[in-house]
Amino acid sequence: MKVLVIGGTGTIGQAVVRELGDDNEVVVAGRNGGDLRVDITSPDSIRDLLQQVGTVDAIVSCAGQAAFAATTELTEEQMELSVRSKLLGQVNLVRFGAAHVVDGGSITLSSGLLAHQPARGSAAISMVNAGVEAFARAAALDLPRGIRVNVVSPPWVAETLTAMGRDPSKGLPADKVALAYAECVRGSRTGEVLDARDFANG
Amino acid sequence: MKVLVIGGTGTIGQAVVRELGDDNEVVVAGRNGGDLRVDITSPDSIRDLLQQVGTVDAIVSCAGQAAFAATTELTEEQMELSVRSKLLGQVNLVRFGAAHVVDGGSITLSSGLLAHQPARGSAAISMVNAGVEAFARAAALDLPRGIRVNVVSPPWVAETLTAMGRDPSKGLPADKVALAYAECVRGSRTGEVLDARDFANG
Repeated sequence: MKVLVIGGTGTIGQAVVRELGDDNEVVVAGRNGGDLRVDITSPDSIRDLLQQVGTVDAIVSCAGQAAFAATTELTEEQMELSVRSKLLGQVNLVRFGAAHVVDGGSITLSSGLLAHQPARGSAAISMVNAGVEAFARAAALDLPRGIRVNVVSPPWVAETLTAMGRDPSKGLPADKVALAYAECVRGSRTGEVLDARDFANG
Repeated sequence: MKVLVIGGTGTIGQAVVRELGDDNEVVVAGRNGGDLRVDITSPDSIRDLLQQVGTVDAIVSCAGQAAFAATTELTEEQMELSVRSKLLGQVNLVRFGAAHVVDGGSITLSSGLLAHQPARGSAAISMVNAGVEAFARAAALDLPRGIRVNVVSPPWVAETLTAMGRDPSKGLPADKVALAYAECVRGSRTGEVLDARDFANG
């Protein structure tokens, strides 16, 4: 299979590329690295990327930023980034990407546990994560040609916790998180939100 | 109590105004009618409205548009309207409105059953409804001064079905839907999403 991994240079993205790389042709796209560059906040940048890549069996997004701040302290810039990047950026990968995916191929997006386990300061992140999940569940009902769409909801990632000076044992290693993305690419699911913890044992 | 009802001229909004009108001072804001005009897609319009209204005990939003179209047929304009209106419009009522609500007062937003019961063509609507719900659940954790925030998820409204030439008995009358909004204003809930059907019997 030919697989386009967007955000393939990040912590989870690199693990997804490793997991899928053995038996697939993987094209890595990233903001600042990878085979191809893309800024998912820009619809034109997404269209350019897809044009360059052509037709693929699967698109995987491990991309998207969202801001952490108390509700009344969120700035316009933080709201705009959250909506343009993790929400509409990923949504546009489905809207524009479907035409570049083979019959029965798949698109896999990323959300996060804050969608349903909010915390102080998570209003913008919870909003975009839940929005991505609901969009994908609905899109799965009307995408053409049997194209599948799913969302992986990763927990805290061990490597991220280490980088933050926190206890990595409270998180899941990126290589384990990647197994949920691989399940979406290799399996036959559609319209599902996978809690990555449920797939960590392969 | 002084209550600001945004979208108070619509089918549900009028019923909320009737339900709360007997024992409260209700200020009705609408796009094309009401005591005051507001375009919730415009942050400046929301700020102007709040400035005119001053301090209130409760803000209720029955406002917000979102587009219905198959995922790959959604236009940029439809996506933009859905995000600017029902999602960020309502989110901004919380972000900007909190400073205008008394200690322990409330803000109540509207979502809809498509958030969790998607249908073909509902991708944009499901996205914004779920986003509103997740935002409110998280905002409830960090809003200052005990300000409460909740979401009412209305089912199909009988009057709307009648207007569409469909069977109104498949929906809930607006006066029944309004009871869930009244519960959010009069009660002590916060961070909750109320299925209006659960409150239809008062």
